[in-house]
Amino acid sequence: MADPGAKEKIGIGLIGAGFMGKCHANAFRSVAGLFDLRVEPELRVLADVDEATARRSADALGFPRSTGDWRELAGDPEVGIVAITAPNALHADIALAAIAAGQSVYCEKPLAVDIPSARAMRDAAEAAGTCTMVGFGYLRNPMLKLAREIVTSGEIGDIVAFRAIHAENYMADPSAPHSFRTDTAGGGALFDLGSHIVSIGRFLLGPIASVNGTLATIHAHRPVAPGSGETRPVEVDDRAVFLAEFDSGVTGSFEANWAASGRRMQLAFEVTGTRGAIAFNQERMNELHLYPADGATGRHGFIRIEAGPEHPPYGNLCPAGGHQLGYNELKVIEVAELLDALAGGPPAHPDFAEAFEVQRTVDAVKLSATDRRWVEVAGL
Amino acid sequence: MADPGAKEKIGIGLIGAGFMGKCHANAFRSVAGLFDLRVEPELRVLADVDEATARRSADALGFPRSTGDWRELAGDPEVGIVAITAPNALHADIALAAIAAGQSVYCEKPLAVDIPSARAMRDAAEAAGTCTMVGFGYLRNPMLKLAREIVTSGEIGDIVAFRAIHAENYMADPSAPHSFRTDTAGGGALFDLGSHIVSIGRFLLGPIASVNGTLATIHAHRPVAPGSGETRPVEVDDRAVFLAEFDSGVTGSFEANWAASGRRMQLAFEVTGTRGAIAFNQERMNELHLYPADGATGRHGFIRIEAGPEHPPYGNLCPAGGHQLGYNELKVIEVAELLDALAGGPPAHPDFAEAFEVQRTVDAVKLSATDRRWVEVAGL
Amino acid sequence: MADPGAKEKIGIGLIGAGFMGKCHANAFRSVAGLFDLRVEPELRVLADVDEATARRSADALGFPRSTGDWRELAGDPEVGIVAITAPNALHADIALAAIAAGQSVYCEKPLAVDIPSARAMRDAAEAAGTCTMVGFGYLRNPMLKLAREIVTSGEIGDIVAFRAIHAENYMADPSAPHSFRTDTAGGGALFDLGSHIVSIGRFLLGPIASVNGTLATIHAHRPVAPGSGETRPVEVDDRAVFLAEFDSGVTGSFEANWAASGRRMQLAFEVTGTRGAIAFNQERMNELHLYPADGATGRHGFIRIEAGPEHPPYGNLCPAGGHQLGYNELKVIEVAELLDALAGGPPAHPDFAEAFEVQRTVDAVKLSATDRRWVEVAGL
Amino acid sequence: MADPGAKEKIGIGLIGAGFMGKCHANAFRSVAGLFDLRVEPELRVLADVDEATARRSADALGFPRSTGDWRELAGDPEVGIVAITAPNALHADIALAAIAAGQSVYCEKPLAVDIPSARAMRDAAEAAGTCTMVGFGYLRNPMLKLAREIVTSGEIGDIVAFRAIHAENYMADPSAPHSFRTDTAGGGALFDLGSHIVSIGRFLLGPIASVNGTLATIHAHRPVAPGSGETRPVEVDDRAVFLAEFDSGVTGSFEANWAASGRRMQLAFEVTGTRGAIAFNQERMNELHLYPADGATGRHGFIRIEAGPEHPPYGNLCPAGGHQLGYNELKVIEVAELLDALAGGPPAHPDFAEAFEVQRTVDAVKLSATDRRWVEVAGL
Repeated sequence: MADPGAKEKIGIGLIGAGFMGKCHANAFRSVAGLFDLRVEPELRVLADVDEATARRSADALGFPRSTGDWRELAGDPEVGIVAITAPNALHADIALAAIAAGQSVYCEKPLAVDIPSARAMRDAAEAAGTCTMVGFGYLRNPMLKLAREIVTSGEIGDIVAFRAIHAENYMADPSAPHSFRTDTAGGGALFDLGSHIVSIGRFLLGPIASVNGTLATIHAHRPVAPGSGETRPVEVDDRAVFLAEFDSGVTGSFEANWAASGRRMQLAFEVTGTRGAIAFNQERMNELHLYPADGATGRHGFIRIEAGPEHPPYGNLCPAGGHQLGYNELKVIEVAELLDALAGGPPAHPDFAEAFEVQRTVDAVKLSATDRRWVEVAGL
Repeated sequence: MADPGAKEKIGIGLIGAGFMGKCHANAFRSVAGLFDLRVEPELRVLADVDEATARRSADALGFPRSTGDWRELAGDPEVGIVAITAPNALHADIALAAIAAGQSVYCEKPLAVDIPSARAMRDAAEAAGTCTMVGFGYLRNPMLKLAREIVTSGEIGDIVAFRAIHAENYMADPSAPHSFRTDTAGGGALFDLGSHIVSIGRFLLGPIASVNGTLATIHAHRPVAPGSGETRPVEVDDRAVFLAEFDSGVTGSFEANWAASGRRMQLAFEVTGTRGAIAFNQERMNELHLYPADGATGRHGFIRIEAGPEHPPYGNLCPAGGHQLGYNELKVIEVAELLDALAGGPPAHPDFAEAFEVQRTVDAVKLSATDRRWVEVAGL
Repeated sequence: MADPGAKEKIGIGLIGAGFMGKCHANAFRSVAGLFDLRVEPELRVLADVDEATARRSADALGFPRSTGDWRELAGDPEVGIVAITAPNALHADIALAAIAAGQSVYCEKPLAVDIPSARAMRDAAEAAGTCTMVGFGYLRNPMLKLAREIVTSGEIGDIVAFRAIHAENYMADPSAPHSFRTDTAGGGALFDLGSHIVSIGRFLLGPIASVNGTLATIHAHRPVAPGSGETRPVEVDDRAVFLAEFDSGVTGSFEANWAASGRRMQLAFEVTGTRGAIAFNQERMNELHLYPADGATGRHGFIRIEAGPEHPPYGNLCPAGGHQLGYNELKVIEVAELLDALAGGPPAHPDFAEAFEVQRTVDAVKLSATDRRWVEVAGL
Repeated sequence: MADPGAKEKIGIGLIGAGFMGKCHANAFRSVAGLFDLRVEPELRVLADVDEATARRSADALGFPRSTGDWRELAGDPEVGIVAITAPNALHADIALAAIAAGQSVYCEKPLAVDIPSARAMRDAAEAAGTCTMVGFGYLRNPMLKLAREIVTSGEIGDIVAFRAIHAENYMADPSAPHSFRTDTAGGGALFDLGSHIVSIGRFLLGPIASVNGTLATIHAHRPVAPGSGETRPVEVDDRAVFLAEFDSGVTGSFEANWAASGRRMQLAFEVTGTRGAIAFNQERMNELHLYPADGATGRHGFIRIEAGPEHPPYGNLCPAGGHQLGYNELKVIEVAELLDALAGGPPAHPDFAEAFEVQRTVDAVKLSATDRRWVEVAGL
């Protein structure tokens, strides 16, 4: 490089421009001004279902090029990272093509719609030595990182209980239509939301050995399209509740519900240790509640810790504590970690190998519900 | 009666003067000044483990007579209601003796330590036509009554999800010694706390058909006595987590934990309906949170309802809303309902028949944990 | 006494059987079973506006005798404590008569309707050596006692800021009619609610030197009686907001509002010190929030302390922390302290001397609002 | 333009690269991908105290050019908007130069350090017809916009009470050194934080007629520099408490405190109306609490409204409600509004004229504290 101060650029190719696509684009635009990165992302190509759609989105999000065929991104010399926010059923094909082309892959969760696909993705990435990152964005929250530090350091003693719930209401209305989320392949609240809390459970307590749960379809029929009078049956769950035994021996309870009236973002958990506890709720994502059992008599209680620069990487986003990060900034942190990994920093996490384990766990839950029995995760 | 204005008196014989015994005594002292009762309670005899203990407690709590032998109360002509706050293992013997003597019985929960005892109590009471009341005090909360009204009236639509937890920390410390609570017969967090949330689940959603759960003993050994260096193994659970299928088809998740660091009274539940939801936490027992799905656009959210006279029987205890009831007042309401039932008002609830169903449910959970399978409650 | 174990009894004469009268009666009924008192109260005579009303209330609350003329209580040999819950304008006459008769006086707040009356009450009690207690019930909360301990011990450093509010909504509706509360003599939110927060300010930070405030009458006319179409002007304030300089030099802000839509019991304060802070809200009266500035890095935050036996006298009412006390139990604690003072324990507080200071402070606020200037409290 | 789809660009010149400078840069980077703007910002020149500092910041934040002299920006043909995040004492000089050069001005609050400067800025902008925007970022919160809509539409009736506090703890530590914030010219908690709540009070309730307050310097001396043993006296307030009478006749209370132990972002207010109330706290900036007085009996309470796409412009930042915006996104909204105003949309607000009124109000508070009297704002 002529200019020794100039940073290396890496081209971003984004597939899908819906909720998460926009979120990815924003993260890539913002990240370089907030984090001291050795490699700087540049928005280059956006792919969507057809060229016109892609063109409009590219204009709106700031991509100079667009295409109606995602396959064009695989191997495009200007694209170093393929970011996948397409429907779940496409994740595997896209990722495998990008891996084959030597590109890095940043894929939204859940990894895939079935175990074979997920396994193929994991194996391909491992074989190629690809840098992969899966978008379990809630893990990026400085409060989650703090939670993990507290749990793994022994600060609250030995962990003895875990409970997690992810409830939202976006499918609470029976007139909410079918979408890729309700397709049998990879749909359901278990896959969509359950995968988040499984990833959090693993992040905090480690691997899950066995599961036992039930699935319920709350609204048996949904419109085939928004506003349509025609309906067809729903074949996936609206709600999943399950017990899990971690490798450590701790039992956890999990609930995923996308038809939870009143809840827009109840992603909450509590971890109990022998010398304290922590509680978190994404509804108030800038707070972690910590109970230290060794407090002074008469002064015990949960401490409401507000996120601040003392909880990395909060300080990259704001130097003043208590000012509050937002959901979108979790994705900024995510891409910062991905770019850091690409530049030789700590490995990206969760990568495909980790996301495969999450996938296997939710699949085991599905099997346990069908068979009404405990299922070993490792058996799938 | 010479004085037409004078109310009929009913004598109270109390067995046990610990936490709950004192609470019962206080409730009987207070109730007549707060509720317009047709029959007025009078503290008459207190029984405890020995005469000296009983005498001291009788003096402290305001009973003129005392005894070291609870059997003296059965059939005592001055005792119309036998109030049982003795260890769980004694409930059956005492209750059966009182029933046989034609007295009414007010018994703390859980009803008994095993199914045969509980069944015998239920059957004896039914055969004798005895008025019985079991002390599931949390149900007396005006906010719980409001919750039931909301759930059963259809105000939040069809119920589709239920989650309940009862976590306290009184056994969180491994140096907390053995007590009647940790005896195999009738002990464990499942029986002690799980019975509360099962009673609440039934109160709100009706009977439970089948269960599937796990039990965990967090502290495997405990001192044989307070401060003792000698320990013996713990044979009961510190924590129980289970799934339940209600007769209505709804799945619920339950957690009972008496070793929950940081939690002194996390008795919490959430009921989700197709057109709304309610949430409650005994930590803030004067609030019920209601989400009505039919709110105006942009004005949706959980309403924090504060208990007031519009939520009976709050007004009997305080004419001013928001002033807050306390735990002890739940017991005042409980004895008011018992005395009202004795005077021909609505039947006491939960009576032995209902408490037997609760007992059967927690026993089914125990069996499910042992056998690692779903268990039908009706089969026990 | 023949029976060395028997406790001395003291007769209670209660004047007024409304909200607070019922609350007093309940407290006297309950207290002996909860606190280890050397003198035991006995309900003896109830006075109300006429004999019939008094009779009905006496029956309901458990007083054997009744009267339509409160003057009969003064000097009644069976009455040791005269409890005053009559309208504010009567407090002085009743109290002075009881003091003259050698009885102890337990008077609801505010002490009187003007400075001369309040001063006369204080002086008479002091001259006669009467045991007096004024019903600023919120001070009895174990969480307030804890707050005071934290503030006065230096636990949060030097106090540098104070803010208090007492907002309720019982006069928010313009159709709420006139009552003794809206009479010019002694009425208004400033006197009714402002006196509570002034008492709390003094309890925590000590005397108030000067004040400066404004009064507002939100609803200029109110019905002369419930449901009446006839209205008359309101001459007292619905809302008072004022600044205060404590003797210590700290500035505090206060707000009293009885027309505060949405607030049923927002009695809240925050005390800021150089090394921490505390925050309290009676809406959640069993919690005190403590911020210790010396927490560990990344673990700072407000601790939500839940009331328990480690916060006396909570343990007298319940041995289990987190179970929650209610408003009525604050009055039980109040009468326990009164009875303890009568039996030679610590002096009752706040007595008439303290209540006079509160009265003087709110009167100074009134003057400051009229004159639109700072007013020295000691000048009144 | 050759390309009809290409958007007009506008060059950004930023002065200052501290907390707010970084925040501005990030907002300008992000905004075009989130809002459908007719004019697109482009980072062009960054000025800071010297060339080296400016160069480093320019590299970090993505500006191609840099300068150690802000004067170079005034009139730079590549700079359409001058964004000022320099110390308060420089605001006037910079703004006047930019206005004279025909550029738009985006200035951080408070507008200036004294009334004459502020007036000159207002007058110059008005005379030149300059588009100005002042960074009272909290006003951009969709929840504040909702609050304003509720207040001004009459949804909660006539407004009768207002209370606001802005407390932070960044100066709570006496070892926090002097900075531009503690300089007499334009410093103090009153100017720094009080200006925010005055702007909010005006946003919601309109102009303030008169004020009466007190100022306190909590820490009389501070180090001259971080870690320095040498101190010098503090001449500004750490805390300001004041009463205010709005033109509408409503009285409000305000508190600004930058030495508030425990509070990192307690920017809170409550507005009471005759038919409801709203409450807000920036600590949980994605929630607005609304009490509608016309609720159903037994269902009254504050509704916790969570921000979502139904509260514009939330949907521009995230299509899914409850996902939470962060502090930085308030600035994104701010620049979107500025850019929209430049492109012919609604006028930018608050502009210099509005910020002058805020300035005048806090100056009046200062005078009232000195003179210990009520002060008319319009008189300054």
